[in-house]
Amino acid sequence: MRETGREIDQLRSIDIQTNFTKHAEGSVLITVGDTKVICNASVEDRVPPFMRGSGKGWITAEYAMLPRATETRNIRESSKGKVSGRTMEIQRLIGRSLRAVVDLEAIGERTIWVDCDVIQADGGTRTASITGAFVAVVHALGKLLKEEKIKSLPITDYLAAISVGVLPDGTEILDLEYSEDAQAHVDMNVVMTGKGEFVELQGTGEEATFTNTQLTKMLALADKGLKEIFEMQAEAINPYQENIEQS
Amino acid sequence: MRETGREIDQLRSIDIQTNFTKHAEGSVLITVGDTKVICNASVEDRVPPFMRGSGKGWITAEYAMLPRATETRNIRESSKGKVSGRTMEIQRLIGRSLRAVVDLEAIGERTIWVDCDVIQADGGTRTASITGAFVAVVHALGKLLKEEKIKSLPITDYLAAISVGVLPDGTEILDLEYSEDAQAHVDMNVVMTGKGEFVELQGTGEEATFTNTQLTKMLALADKGLKEIFEMQAEAINPYQENIEQS
Amino acid sequence: MRETGREIDQLRSIDIQTNFTKHAEGSVLITVGDTKVICNASVEDRVPPFMRGSGKGWITAEYAMLPRATETRNIRESSKGKVSGRTMEIQRLIGRSLRAVVDLEAIGERTIWVDCDVIQADGGTRTASITGAFVAVVHALGKLLKEEKIKSLPITDYLAAISVGVLPDGTEILDLEYSEDAQAHVDMNVVMTGKGEFVELQGTGEEATFTNTQLTKMLALADKGLKEIFEMQAEAINPYQENIEQS
Amino acid sequence: MRETGREIDQLRSIDIQTNFTKHAEGSVLITVGDTKVICNASVEDRVPPFMRGSGKGWITAEYAMLPRATETRNIRESSKGKVSGRTMEIQRLIGRSLRAVVDLEAIGERTIWVDCDVIQADGGTRTASITGAFVAVVHALGKLLKEEKIKSLPITDYLAAISVGVLPDGTEILDLEYSEDAQAHVDMNVVMTGKGEFVELQGTGEEATFTNTQLTKMLALADKGLKEIFEMQAEAINPYQENIEQS
Amino acid sequence: MRETGREIDQLRSIDIQTNFTKHAEGSVLITVGDTKVICNASVEDRVPPFMRGSGKGWITAEYAMLPRATETRNIRESSKGKVSGRTMEIQRLIGRSLRAVVDLEAIGERTIWVDCDVIQADGGTRTASITGAFVAVVHALGKLLKEEKIKSLPITDYLAAISVGVLPDGTEILDLEYSEDAQAHVDMNVVMTGKGEFVELQGTGEEATFTNTQLTKMLALADKGLKEIFEMQAEAINPYQENIEQS
Amino acid sequence: MRETGREIDQLRSIDIQTNFTKHAEGSVLITVGDTKVICNASVEDRVPPFMRGSGKGWITAEYAMLPRATETRNIRESSKGKVSGRTMEIQRLIGRSLRAVVDLEAIGERTIWVDCDVIQADGGTRTASITGAFVAVVHALGKLLKEEKIKSLPITDYLAAISVGVLPDGTEILDLEYSEDAQAHVDMNVVMTGKGEFVELQGTGEEATFTNTQLTKMLALADKGLKEIFEMQAEAINPYQENIEQS
Repeated sequence: MRETGREIDQLRSIDIQTNFTKHAEGSVLITVGDTKVICNASVEDRVPPFMRGSGKGWITAEYAMLPRATETRNIRESSKGKVSGRTMEIQRLIGRSLRAVVDLEAIGERTIWVDCDVIQADGGTRTASITGAFVAVVHALGKLLKEEKIKSLPITDYLAAISVGVLPDGTEILDLEYSEDAQAHVDMNVVMTGKGEFVELQGTGEEATFTNTQLTKMLALADKGLKEIFEMQAEAINPYQENIEQS
Repeated sequence: MRETGREIDQLRSIDIQTNFTKHAEGSVLITVGDTKVICNASVEDRVPPFMRGSGKGWITAEYAMLPRATETRNIRESSKGKVSGRTMEIQRLIGRSLRAVVDLEAIGERTIWVDCDVIQADGGTRTASITGAFVAVVHALGKLLKEEKIKSLPITDYLAAISVGVLPDGTEILDLEYSEDAQAHVDMNVVMTGKGEFVELQGTGEEATFTNTQLTKMLALADKGLKEIFEMQAEAINPYQENIEQS
Repeated sequence: MRETGREIDQLRSIDIQTNFTKHAEGSVLITVGDTKVICNASVEDRVPPFMRGSGKGWITAEYAMLPRATETRNIRESSKGKVSGRTMEIQRLIGRSLRAVVDLEAIGERTIWVDCDVIQADGGTRTASITGAFVAVVHALGKLLKEEKIKSLPITDYLAAISVGVLPDGTEILDLEYSEDAQAHVDMNVVMTGKGEFVELQGTGEEATFTNTQLTKMLALADKGLKEIFEMQAEAINPYQENIEQS
Repeated sequence: MRETGREIDQLRSIDIQTNFTKHAEGSVLITVGDTKVICNASVEDRVPPFMRGSGKGWITAEYAMLPRATETRNIRESSKGKVSGRTMEIQRLIGRSLRAVVDLEAIGERTIWVDCDVIQADGGTRTASITGAFVAVVHALGKLLKEEKIKSLPITDYLAAISVGVLPDGTEILDLEYSEDAQAHVDMNVVMTGKGEFVELQGTGEEATFTNTQLTKMLALADKGLKEIFEMQAEAINPYQENIEQS
Repeated sequence: MRETGREIDQLRSIDIQTNFTKHAEGSVLITVGDTKVICNASVEDRVPPFMRGSGKGWITAEYAMLPRATETRNIRESSKGKVSGRTMEIQRLIGRSLRAVVDLEAIGERTIWVDCDVIQADGGTRTASITGAFVAVVHALGKLLKEEKIKSLPITDYLAAISVGVLPDGTEILDLEYSEDAQAHVDMNVVMTGKGEFVELQGTGEEATFTNTQLTKMLALADKGLKEIFEMQAEAINPYQENIEQS
Repeated sequence: MRETGREIDQLRSIDIQTNFTKHAEGSVLITVGDTKVICNASVEDRVPPFMRGSGKGWITAEYAMLPRATETRNIRESSKGKVSGRTMEIQRLIGRSLRAVVDLEAIGERTIWVDCDVIQADGGTRTASITGAFVAVVHALGKLLKEEKIKSLPITDYLAAISVGVLPDGTEILDLEYSEDAQAHVDMNVVMTGKGEFVELQGTGEEATFTNTQLTKMLALADKGLKEIFEMQAEAINPYQENIEQS
């Protein structure tokens, strides 16, 4: 048992609310414990300049936190006039991850903008963003399908993410909340497809290192947690489950 | 009756949910029709440089929209690297309005940061922000009172805002939603105290003008609407109603 | 009598010098007491991207102060790398005001740039800017008329602005100079057409409020002052007075 | 005779109006032909961080053009969010030039800010700025002397600047106006002290070159012109002529 | 054999030139195939504000490419006015990696600035930067040791990085050069200590995924390559090898 | 003899290494004493917007220093988000200088980007940049000639630059290194063509002045030094010497 009362391999309670706001083509509020992220997917009928004429589409993501999503207030990035390195890293990660399971040829010269806005943070905001964003993108593409703008749902597999880590006492744990993340020696984010293949693996020792054995244990925890998450996603993407070929 | 089905002097349905997020000292989700704004009030134990040593506190506001709060996606101001003129105008308005009903001497050298983040927009986001921000500030100051950091609730009166306007056919109406705002010839925002005095009055002809008679009618509509709003605020600031001397 | 020696309803001495600089199509130096603003109107033969192909023209304004227009030197906004909220608010106000009396259809796909540069400030710079800018715009459009690029002067009415306010002792006054503005409890800017209709009304309580009665008194003062200003403008727009249908 | 009707070694008419605006410690409007620059010198009772504790003062200059100082409107640098290379080059030149004739030790830990704002441009704005700025600085320091904040006028000599150049036909000319500057093959700015020594010499071939002989002729023209300017400055700095030891 | 003529597990030729520039406390030019990076380590006798008074030191890294380090010229980030997401990601990675093997307590309130400037790029610039930066940091800290500002070399282990990946045909390879990187389906950067423990693991599928088996093979390749690199580093840090306790 | 051991008219040892990096069309590492600058010339097959359709080409230069090129580390301009005035001045100088000896008509609608990156600084970085950039540009244009994209080498003459100055004791010296530059009263940069004509002359008194006699002596020193440099350039531009008509 961890200090937080959870088992070593236990996820926090997860809720995925769809159609959260009315304007976005896909809109999700994902809640993972006390972490809450609004994931909106918007469809734009053109692609960025570097892709024009390619016949392919594009998916890009933006991520932000409300100033008071955290325990102490953060300065708004628009006030600072620039986006932090952390934010850029997360936006790039979300975008790359989603592109791994979307058939960009099939969506045509369209851009899917994914906006992940954290309204309350308690650790794991980037993994919650990916998990929620996947559902929002399915709904947005599902809308294109209904409108007969595309012929089939251009999603090749499920996609979700979770964090794993190593506590100072050496225990590997699943789904770190903020109090755990703050003290962990190792923090790893795993982005995986429904078939159990990796899309992204980002492990970091915080002024510390980790062994191959620890890596193996962490990956097993992530695998277990992600399987549970794929099932929740399956419900949340209703009625599009059948459009994704299951592993 | 308007095209929207409302009477000329009828407000949209309003809901004020308190304790919306867990970290902010005061946190409100205000819903006015389809407009939804998160208003978080944060207490910081210091004031900006220009006020240090004055013994007085300060209230400042920031306002933003999620990119997909609107019908088409807006570019994030943090990505553009600067805050638009419209945003600055609104932040300054919210801050000034709140300072009119808060006793800055009594809060001591503290800053109240008010963050108004629009998660869904359908007209009237700045007035909803002011109305919601007042409730969030009362809760934040109420918390200071409970913690005995201040001796009494330093709020001198209720504060709320509403829009009024003139339709192309000359009708004066209360509480414009987006479809009305887009076509109105005159748009006026009225910020008022519980005693019925003006804090701010901002009337604008959009490539149009308005007469003294129209002004009088609009102000009467605003007065009626704001009285209804003050009652909703009174419930939302529970248990602090008694701490504000009623007009 | 006020401390400044003026009557409650007395304007400062006003001078409107035309053809102040040689390059601008319309160039005015307006002096209101010790406030001096250069208002230049420039004609550009194209419109901003969002208006292309509409057949309509556009008017936009920029406002700035020389660093030493004020008692203590201000940092130049170009050095700070960004325009302040106050400046943006004023530029938007001037532009909107002018658009209310110019027939944008009639000027064709042209932009009128209005630059208001304060070279000496003593209160009322934004209202002096509007009053002077109107004259500059008339001269710029008059030049287009002379060159037969447009068929008639596309000005529908006179336009001017003045400030009114409430002193701490409760007196309503007209045309606040800096020493009065700094202590006033209420400050209101009134932008009006020659026919006496409002274009903009912006009243602000500075950590204070104002009643409906005070509003009425302030508007009466503004009306009196603006009538005097329209007469000065009529002379300054010579020979174009006849081209504007008088109320 | 040049196309402009002037002799090869003839200056344009020059006027130096002092006490032009009321707030600055030294305020000058310098007119050189159709070029008009407001030069304001402001005294601040502290120095930039890198000089604190040195006991020495500092002089720094800023330069800007009103957007419509020129034949076609220029975008405001505050709107662009950055200062151009040309502007920076000129500001650095003005500041360096002034520092050559001011005894920085003697002014104590104060900064003299010099703001040169071009309100109408017709060539030679940077040299007019230096010539006018010198007069403004003398007045600002003169004011410190009157207030007995300094013991003597810390000016070691007169300072002025003029342009010389080579026309396409090979003629060397003095004081280029815009129409000449636009076609000149060589453009040289000479900053000189009353004793006839150089402070700055900046000669540039515009896709062209110049010989040692041409350099000698240009320097002789500059010397003649500057001697005339020093006399005009002597009048403009009244009553401080005696405080500067003449060459 | 790969198209590049290298074996699957073969590193490119590596050269580590020390004392490359004269001012930096530690200065290295690392060459990995056609990739060339200057790694300079600078010692500053203070820490950033958030660490003041902690008694601990800090290591931070900056990374840039010369505009023509690449096949087509890149716009300079200073001209664009902002640092790209890719650059920030790399700088954060280099800094975090180095902090894992440096005893920050032992260096006292000092900052080690590591500047990695790519002068020629052919793939693997971030891993070459880490490998070279380690050597530069050892030399910089070695200099502090010689000057007796610290008591022992505060380096806990060797540190180096290498890339591994999966080609489209499924082959796992070591040390990708640009032509391989451009087509690889998977790209993974491994940062490891001399003891063989991971500091960072960043694996990315480029619109692709990878299995646990592929991960295992890639990690084995990285392990082999890094062991060879540690030996080259050992020579390059002469005479400080003995100061690092070997695994 | 100077403190540095050099004669008054003695250049530092100069080395010009060509083909320094592999991607640029012209790539030079120039070493002048301890000053080392990489000068890369890149050919882009289009011109900036203001020149499109003119049939002419353009040459533009950028200049930067590695943070630790200097004795104490400088903040990177990309981190500061803006380019300093000094940098802009130097880039403008390098670009203008090169344009004086390149036939822009003959290169067609192409841009030559010249990047001068100082990797080690010891005075004279801007003059070394010009001298090295000339060689890089000749190689880049030579490549176009070989590829038969242009018909002849569009270089009208050699181009090089050197600094001269006046020491506190009044001695005029050639080619100032940093220790001399820091104390010199006068600093002058001379850019000259192979025929001995001036392209740029920039002389500056640092809180000091200089006489006509000193100017003459400095120019003689520059002339002597530049003649030696032209000979080194002639070797470095091999095999293109014959393509430049010698003076």
